[in-house]
Amino acid sequence: MKFHDYLFDLPTYQAGKPLEEVMASYHIPPENIIKLGSNENPFGVAPSAKKAIIEYANLASVYPDDSYSDIKKSLANKYDVKSDNIIIGSGSDQIIEFCVHSICDSAKTILMAQYTFAMYEIYAKQCNANIIKTTSFFHDLDSMIDMYHRHKPDIIFICTPNNPLGEALKRVDLIEFLNKISTDCLVILDCAYMEYCAYKDNDFAIYPKDIVEFPNVIYLGTFSKIYGLGGMRIGYGIANDNIISLLHKLRPPFNVTTLSLRAANASLQDIDFISKTLQNNFTQMQRYYVFADEYGLEIIESYGNFVTFLLHDKLNSTTISSFLLKQGIVVRDLSSYGLNAMRITIGTPSQNDFLLSKMAGILISYKDSF
Amino acid sequence: MKFHDYLFDLPTYQAGKPLEEVMASYHIPPENIIKLGSNENPFGVAPSAKKAIIEYANLASVYPDDSYSDIKKSLANKYDVKSDNIIIGSGSDQIIEFCVHSICDSAKTILMAQYTFAMYEIYAKQCNANIIKTTSFFHDLDSMIDMYHRHKPDIIFICTPNNPLGEALKRVDLIEFLNKISTDCLVILDCAYMEYCAYKDNDFAIYPKDIVEFPNVIYLGTFSKIYGLGGMRIGYGIANDNIISLLHKLRPPFNVTTLSLRAANASLQDIDFISKTLQNNFTQMQRYYVFADEYGLEIIESYGNFVTFLLHDKLNSTTISSFLLKQGIVVRDLSSYGLNAMRITIGTPSQNDFLLSKMAGILISYKDSF
Repeated sequence: MKFHDYLFDLPTYQAGKPLEEVMASYHIPPENIIKLGSNENPFGVAPSAKKAIIEYANLASVYPDDSYSDIKKSLANKYDVKSDNIIIGSGSDQIIEFCVHSICDSAKTILMAQYTFAMYEIYAKQCNANIIKTTSFFHDLDSMIDMYHRHKPDIIFICTPNNPLGEALKRVDLIEFLNKISTDCLVILDCAYMEYCAYKDNDFAIYPKDIVEFPNVIYLGTFSKIYGLGGMRIGYGIANDNIISLLHKLRPPFNVTTLSLRAANASLQDIDFISKTLQNNFTQMQRYYVFADEYGLEIIESYGNFVTFLLHDKLNSTTISSFLLKQGIVVRDLSSYGLNAMRITIGTPSQNDFLLSKMAGILISYKDSF
Repeated sequence: MKFHDYLFDLPTYQAGKPLEEVMASYHIPPENIIKLGSNENPFGVAPSAKKAIIEYANLASVYPDDSYSDIKKSLANKYDVKSDNIIIGSGSDQIIEFCVHSICDSAKTILMAQYTFAMYEIYAKQCNANIIKTTSFFHDLDSMIDMYHRHKPDIIFICTPNNPLGEALKRVDLIEFLNKISTDCLVILDCAYMEYCAYKDNDFAIYPKDIVEFPNVIYLGTFSKIYGLGGMRIGYGIANDNIISLLHKLRPPFNVTTLSLRAANASLQDIDFISKTLQNNFTQMQRYYVFADEYGLEIIESYGNFVTFLLHDKLNSTTISSFLLKQGIVVRDLSSYGLNAMRITIGTPSQNDFLLSKMAGILISYKDSF
């Protein structure tokens, strides 16, 4: 077959060993696994969403109402925008895919931060686009503007709060930046962790209502993080309706499950669950800062639901992650990002107790070998 | 933004009015709606799948095991192929998307039957590929070979049983056809309704085990039809592992929900449900043939879970579909395919009672106006 040549150079997806198999080989029962590697909500699914899934399980056989009008109405209401400003995706990931596929080919260029969500690059490579990255460690809008002027990219990715580092951008700075970008260039604001960020410091909140005013900017949100629906694959894009109507041309029918729509709509209303999640996150995050201080580890201040430890040369993120895995704790080793670092989701109090005690044990044992 | 020019010519997705809204305007309560327009399983979700959804509702917050090893093992076992021969999609639709996107651009051509699943053309247009169609009413392998030699397409689509007409191809004929196609050309066998077809007449059964022997052919199956999981968006492709590993490069991580994987695995084992579905389908289908005979309507013999009526000039498919809709019955008007025809999913006995009685009423009232 005449598959596109460039696809052969794309990193092949390697099906990782399922967690259950890994854990079984360490004799750890599934119920004892602590998943702090994927930034899921540590309190699990919102009670209202679980109720909706059970109540509507019968609808598993029925294709969703493909207009997605209910969830769009709820989001439009929440964000004070119109339903026409919204597109629903199989996770916000799929909206990234629509954006990249609608613009990119080998003549196009995307600009992104050096350390940010890995899928931006993968989707761009699927279309053989050129990829350029800033050299700054965190998102740096000045250096991004500089590269924008030099390289004239067709798409710029901004992730705030940024995954996997955790830093965020001030609203005033971001809006100033957006005003400097030509309408020829699509700016994708990935705001998967925005609820956490806005709670922590309102100066860092980005509002979709402001974003739809720009003809060339899209805001991405998700139900996978604070809303506790990582397994249900539902996210959204909010933008000027010209962008949204174009992206709809690439949306396959029925790209979200019937039960995901019901669960998402229910979770949006679950104020108590959201509030409990936010409070736990920042209270518990303090313990990680104190821990880092106590053990002389470098930790990045985070605006999301995770913290990232930057390890010094004598500690290796892959070794430590493997140690933790053997204790039943999953964290995200960032070696694949070219970093000697670990990203850890902020868990429940008892999960954090367990992780911090195990990590203390490892660090003490390592200390002896320095 | 520099969106691809050709996307602007793609038919814009129009969010249809949700069924509930349409029915409310006719004062029909949702529980009285009979959905025979989307070829869903009329018995709904398999009991085992419903049980799995409820049992694992807690997992809604957890990203799926992205290796999809459990469902791949089950399918490999069922079809006597290897897990490496299988890719899982958000419906078999998404596998079509991977295939088209991995090959097509404006220099590439796809060949398809004149009347077949509309999404083949839409995915090809997303990549600006050329589209050619046979002129025969049904799939005709001789005319397809003729066009293949004349146009040298890069992809050929074969849908057996065919949606929306219902005809199917004999295994021996299809294998002979596949042997005539160069390995440069990918042949996509869309077998979404194959379980029905194989039950009706084994000579028309296509086996994935035979297909993986071809280096350039892929078999597509789905959980949306006989397995009763239309709303859960899960399907699969089975092919030579070289094809599968290339397609995996385009598969986004977590493209299927955690609960869809559990439900699909459960439904695969639900022998009683499958058996009841198959028996009902072909027993009840007879009633449609008898009805067509009685009312002088042209009906196509079907190998799927639906029948298609070809209407004569004095009847209009859009008018009749609208009449039925007002009675609470949803069928598929095929006017968008350029046909004066209606596709009707075979329902439960009581659904068919209701539909046939209402249709009889309409036909009698029409007769007076001839």
